[in-house]
Amino acid sequence: MKITEMNGGIVAPSGFKAAGVHCGLRKNRSRLDLAMIYSDVRCAAAGVFTTNKVFAAPVGVDREHLSDGYAQAIIINSGNANTCSEDGYEKAGAMIACASEVLGIPEKDVLISSTGVIGVPLPIKPILEGIPMLKEKLSSEPSGSEDAAVAIMTTDTKKKEYAIKYQFGGKDIKIGGICKGSGMIQPNMATMLAYITTDASISPELLRKSLKHCADLTFNMVSVDGDTSTNDTLIVMASGLSGAAVINEENEAYEAFLEALLNVCMKMAKYIAADGEGATKLIECKITGAKTEQDAKILAKSVIRSPLVKCAMFGADANWGRVLCALGYSGADFDVDAVCCSFRSTAGEIEVCRNGVGCGFDEDIAKEILIRNIITIDCKVGDGAYEATAWGCDLSYEYVRINGDYRS
Amino acid sequence: MKITEMNGGIVAPSGFKAAGVHCGLRKNRSRLDLAMIYSDVRCAAAGVFTTNKVFAAPVGVDREHLSDGYAQAIIINSGNANTCSEDGYEKAGAMIACASEVLGIPEKDVLISSTGVIGVPLPIKPILEGIPMLKEKLSSEPSGSEDAAVAIMTTDTKKKEYAIKYQFGGKDIKIGGICKGSGMIQPNMATMLAYITTDASISPELLRKSLKHCADLTFNMVSVDGDTSTNDTLIVMASGLSGAAVINEENEAYEAFLEALLNVCMKMAKYIAADGEGATKLIECKITGAKTEQDAKILAKSVIRSPLVKCAMFGADANWGRVLCALGYSGADFDVDAVCCSFRSTAGEIEVCRNGVGCGFDEDIAKEILIRNIITIDCKVGDGAYEATAWGCDLSYEYVRINGDYRS
Repeated sequence: MKITEMNGGIVAPSGFKAAGVHCGLRKNRSRLDLAMIYSDVRCAAAGVFTTNKVFAAPVGVDREHLSDGYAQAIIINSGNANTCSEDGYEKAGAMIACASEVLGIPEKDVLISSTGVIGVPLPIKPILEGIPMLKEKLSSEPSGSEDAAVAIMTTDTKKKEYAIKYQFGGKDIKIGGICKGSGMIQPNMATMLAYITTDASISPELLRKSLKHCADLTFNMVSVDGDTSTNDTLIVMASGLSGAAVINEENEAYEAFLEALLNVCMKMAKYIAADGEGATKLIECKITGAKTEQDAKILAKSVIRSPLVKCAMFGADANWGRVLCALGYSGADFDVDAVCCSFRSTAGEIEVCRNGVGCGFDEDIAKEILIRNIITIDCKVGDGAYEATAWGCDLSYEYVRINGDYRS
Repeated sequence: MKITEMNGGIVAPSGFKAAGVHCGLRKNRSRLDLAMIYSDVRCAAAGVFTTNKVFAAPVGVDREHLSDGYAQAIIINSGNANTCSEDGYEKAGAMIACASEVLGIPEKDVLISSTGVIGVPLPIKPILEGIPMLKEKLSSEPSGSEDAAVAIMTTDTKKKEYAIKYQFGGKDIKIGGICKGSGMIQPNMATMLAYITTDASISPELLRKSLKHCADLTFNMVSVDGDTSTNDTLIVMASGLSGAAVINEENEAYEAFLEALLNVCMKMAKYIAADGEGATKLIECKITGAKTEQDAKILAKSVIRSPLVKCAMFGADANWGRVLCALGYSGADFDVDAVCCSFRSTAGEIEVCRNGVGCGFDEDIAKEILIRNIITIDCKVGDGAYEATAWGCDLSYEYVRINGDYRS
């Protein structure tokens, strides 16, 4: 299927507007800190949230509001996580009520997210003042998506948006997204937030199913530092305004949508991995030949998470022993004596380990490959039929600086 | 029971000699790289080894040699891990055969360990030349233990030895140990090695049981970077030369031995945590009120492993939200709304979170507490009866430098 990249992020799909404003949660007046995503019509909607037992009030609220499978607007603030404070649900309720009134839609169709410092009461006044400003600024121009993408950033170094279109049944169907990565805020908590809009017409059930499927293969295969935030959120809203027929069974139209959604999720997951705190490289670990899908995933994530592998990649050091070590302690089943391992980048590919034993290789060629900024670690762990890919980044001095600095 | 610290490390207990030499595995001629621990008599012996599926040839050999519960000598080289190379077992066999001949003891009573670069064939000639030199240098003076402790060091910044004595049945019983921490070697693999000697007289079965018990509470609760090496080894040898009665049931004498052994293991585990690569602080996380022992252990280790907590400790930042976050994603069962959390050091103690919610605290006082070099994080996670403590260190620029540097 032909998937074409396009501009406009979350407002590329028909029916969506977005905005970002500075409401005052951040001291720096030039930094946007509140975003809104709005659909002209009520949307089928689904979400995937943190598995952390400690979760933010907005996560609790969104889970409930998505139980009926519909939503129409999302409000997102940066600067405060609204987690572990006594009045978290009260403040979340106030955000919802305000947006509902300002937008003239039911409270149940409003979703909210917060990212930032944990355990500090959320300043609600700036948010209640900011919501009407957001409504005024709502725009279906690319600037609307851009402002929203900027307003949700924390220590991200780049705003992250993406949009694509594909054709099905003679209609253009569009999917767009914005996200923020595992950055700390001033510096308190890593949070991954991602919002996807589409004008596909799809039932809430299938939207939920497709989102779960794509999240498992993309966002859930990203690890920046192994910490799982209290606020992680991925939400998709489908306006149905593409004009294409409604997808309410797992037919060809569903398969096409799934492929396109996977494309968007994959792109955004890689954005997040590559912009991990202090990251200088995107690291990809591809496992093949595993005995089960679960084993493949565990192995790939174990390599990506290993601080020693991450430091080696930072140093462009072909330290394959650390890769084997990470496979070995992952807990997954595989045959140690069957492991073959290579490093790959735009500069070429080099095999470093064959059947569990190091193969002599040219360190200079390896270095040439590893100094690039996208590195793939390929590991064949046997003759099994399963494979998986995980994404992460290297571990640099900058990560320690960002996260070790005194709060101020 | 009164436990008294004493000098002499592994040669403090009666019957033991040790030595360290430079045999040539390291280029720097002033660095010792081969150690021997020898007992005048055959010892009850037990070991605990890495759980990594990828393990070194010496680990495989030691597991077999300890199956009968006895040993008399240990040879340890630094500079090469003898892991993931085709002739690993052949070279391990050559080390064993040489030591057996030089010392005049059965091969099965010789144990070996290797630590260093992975996947590079072990240079065997320097080791075979070094073993007779070690025999010549064997000494029951403290210098023997010191040399052995130095010879097993990799990126450790300090040699690690410790010895204690306690009285039972009118006899002095001594336990000594040397260990090395999770350092990388030039820089390829983290490995924890620890060797304990005692002149207690104890059956191999109870020695094994006591070692497992103590390892679970100490070495297995240490995490420097979450990576589990291919070579991790903990061995204890009991000469029985104290003159005290043999311990062959779980009586008072066993309980006394267990307490003393735990003391030694705890001290050495803390040495290793405090000297983690790039560490500036020892971090201790004590969990109380857990529903099961397993939950307590998982929670404590999750906090100690969290890169975000480790960076916060490096920066003396009272970032308790990261502690809650690490508890939350640990997978252990606990009541989020019951969590109370404090930071403690020689400068005092400060409560930062009560019943899952931040309690206002004085950041200056918190900083005063956290700038010290031993920090305890206390977390009460409910009303359960179980507790556990884990040890680790902070995450500093130096960790990244050590592990990101090009090999050379």
